[in-house]
Amino acid sequence: MNRTEPRTLAGTMELLPNEQILMNQMKQIIENTYQKFGFLPLDTPILELSEVLLAKAGGETEKQIYRFSKGDTDLSLRFDLTVPLAKYVAKNYGNLSFPFRRYQIGKVYRGEKPQKGRFREFYQCDIDIIGDGELDIINDAELPSVIYTIMKELGFDKFSIHINNRKILNGLFESMNQKENSTDILRIIDKIDKIGKEAVITELEKIKIEKNNIERIMQFIEIDGTSDEKLEKLENLNIENQTFKIGLKELKDVIKYVRMFGIPENNFTVDLTIARGLDYYTGTVYETFLDEYKELGSVCSGGRYENLAEYYIDKKLPGVGISIGLTRLFYKLNELELIKTEKKSISDVLIIPMLEDLSVPIKLATQLRQEKINTEIYLNDKKLKAKFKYADKLQIPYVIVIGEDEIKTNTVNLKDMKTGKERNLELNSAEIAKVLKS
Amino acid sequence: MNRTEPRTLAGTMELLPNEQILMNQMKQIIENTYQKFGFLPLDTPILELSEVLLAKAGGETEKQIYRFSKGDTDLSLRFDLTVPLAKYVAKNYGNLSFPFRRYQIGKVYRGEKPQKGRFREFYQCDIDIIGDGELDIINDAELPSVIYTIMKELGFDKFSIHINNRKILNGLFESMNQKENSTDILRIIDKIDKIGKEAVITELEKIKIEKNNIERIMQFIEIDGTSDEKLEKLENLNIENQTFKIGLKELKDVIKYVRMFGIPENNFTVDLTIARGLDYYTGTVYETFLDEYKELGSVCSGGRYENLAEYYIDKKLPGVGISIGLTRLFYKLNELELIKTEKKSISDVLIIPMLEDLSVPIKLATQLRQEKINTEIYLNDKKLKAKFKYADKLQIPYVIVIGEDEIKTNTVNLKDMKTGKERNLELNSAEIAKVLKS
Repeated sequence: MNRTEPRTLAGTMELLPNEQILMNQMKQIIENTYQKFGFLPLDTPILELSEVLLAKAGGETEKQIYRFSKGDTDLSLRFDLTVPLAKYVAKNYGNLSFPFRRYQIGKVYRGEKPQKGRFREFYQCDIDIIGDGELDIINDAELPSVIYTIMKELGFDKFSIHINNRKILNGLFESMNQKENSTDILRIIDKIDKIGKEAVITELEKIKIEKNNIERIMQFIEIDGTSDEKLEKLENLNIENQTFKIGLKELKDVIKYVRMFGIPENNFTVDLTIARGLDYYTGTVYETFLDEYKELGSVCSGGRYENLAEYYIDKKLPGVGISIGLTRLFYKLNELELIKTEKKSISDVLIIPMLEDLSVPIKLATQLRQEKINTEIYLNDKKLKAKFKYADKLQIPYVIVIGEDEIKTNTVNLKDMKTGKERNLELNSAEIAKVLKS
Repeated sequence: MNRTEPRTLAGTMELLPNEQILMNQMKQIIENTYQKFGFLPLDTPILELSEVLLAKAGGETEKQIYRFSKGDTDLSLRFDLTVPLAKYVAKNYGNLSFPFRRYQIGKVYRGEKPQKGRFREFYQCDIDIIGDGELDIINDAELPSVIYTIMKELGFDKFSIHINNRKILNGLFESMNQKENSTDILRIIDKIDKIGKEAVITELEKIKIEKNNIERIMQFIEIDGTSDEKLEKLENLNIENQTFKIGLKELKDVIKYVRMFGIPENNFTVDLTIARGLDYYTGTVYETFLDEYKELGSVCSGGRYENLAEYYIDKKLPGVGISIGLTRLFYKLNELELIKTEKKSISDVLIIPMLEDLSVPIKLATQLRQEKINTEIYLNDKKLKAKFKYADKLQIPYVIVIGEDEIKTNTVNLKDMKTGKERNLELNSAEIAKVLKS
């Protein structure tokens, strides 16, 4: 027979079971936390009409899209979860309750050149809060609280949620009449860590920013200190621009509420340098970094936008959202051996029958399952050693062997596979379940 | 602005949040049950190389596949979860423990003509047990036990798992030297419920089946009674064919073990008429019907196959598996209002602040979340009535209003939204959590 080499498309993730278990636990923690804050689940299709999905897209994004025809239909695979959300909210506007709080965890597709740690098919885990006409600024403080809870549940303590407001940057540029140069200015000041202060000034001069404006920009990006000190220094810049003032007020409110949500000072900071792309966000923006692994980049980002769905509906729908790129995050954490979830096996216990008549082992397995114990029974005829090896490879924490002796004495040994210790118990599902649950 | 009509591709499912909650609960029940039996999770890519995915495919299936190119790469969306499993097991053969028991719940794609209840993007929920070289027949009895548990967990009592063995049919046809006509014969006898016995005989005559063979076929398909009676009547046919005899022995063993797994007689039956397609399955086959809604067709089907991955690897890998077409099942059950899961809301409680300073309501929400209560806090400035309407529409079961009075008295009213009853409690998260959990 002609055989095809079994292989997987570069840029897609396919894990061995033990890694898949870890990945699923991370996903579950994220989903549980989203639910803990009362976000509603959505599951929009991966396959969408190109006309609808690409109503807004253009440039880089469009090039990366998996787009194709089937019959007469022009189709695309979704490239994020935000455009499908916009479509969904516009389509179902009359049937939704606002503020509409939804989470979606699903795969998205981007035809990137595959390279280590870059994915073409990957999970995004998004939450968004969408207002009908307006959305109070306090919502911008609830999302950091969600991020904080997720990071803690994932086992991290040393992380920092960086918070900024785009209106501050925009207002600054407006006050200097440099709005149309803002993209270039941001690009240049973004390099300060790499090229240093002097080079930044030189580059700003090159694009003909006036001396007093360069001073102002440098003054701005050199603002440091604690979050409160930064807010105070911003105030002291005395910038007479309405956008700037609104942005500063919003940022102050968000920081006030972030504290109210109980996020420790160690885990958030005002960071005037983050901007999160240039078009989309219009107010609060977030990025999240692991203090000891900044090279990972932001593991959870997002922000506030003015209008979610203007390409589909004549309603003003402001929103705020965050997104976790789970596939990349898992890949990186796994590589660094930073995954701190504990459960390594699906089965809590493996029952190994060593006798002809399987009725007792099967009955015990059924009863343990009724007690909510994940119970596997080894159903192939192998030597005892092979069966133990199986339990070991699957990292199943407990094993029970049932042979003729166990039936006769009506007792079993519950073997802890980690310590090797055995505990003699009555052959009774309630008693065994009690020990396994303890 | 030019607006695009927000719409969804026909044949994909996009639900409103309240329906999505029900759908997710069904999915969760299926996943939990798969785990209860110790199946390992897999999550293979949706996007695969066409050469790999279509190594085996042909005919009808291939026409339905979403296949396209991106750059030089010929890609396809998976059309089931079995081919990806075959690829996976072949690819990772050396790293897996056998019997390899995996579950996968994921979307698959078929470019069908869209019609009511037919989907192009839909969830399949599969489990398979793959042996290395051999796989004991008792595994064929464990899967009905999984089906039984799922159906019970979904709230159904009146259902029946139909079990047959393909070797019995194949052996029967072999014994009549009609192996090459088996497809036609099966197609004809499949119509007996519609066209009646006489018409079946006429059609069999048309394709030139000899009289004594027609008699034998009719004798076979008229076998009735309890499962044990059917098995006895099969025995009494005295068919001297090795395949038939093996099939009968296997079916008897499966029925014996199915009883051992504790499946009540009402919930399974020997059904000699099911064949599950013609090529793939080689032994035990299953279908599952709701007794009162047979028109739904089989809600969970599967069977035994000789060799999972021969297109990819030179190893004999026999397996047995089942699949639930969740999207279609949900659609049909929802239409018939047969979904029996209870939880209709993600949030367990909504906190409604009616005061300026939000620190107390926010603190309570944070503490309740730490007590594993899904807690939403209404963060927009609306009238009380609008906030209650929101809780009502989202079917959130409990509401707590916190205003100045509540702060002063340090008590709150916990309102049961179903009964309208209010219960006065201390403003203390532990106490409130206790009541909510009870």
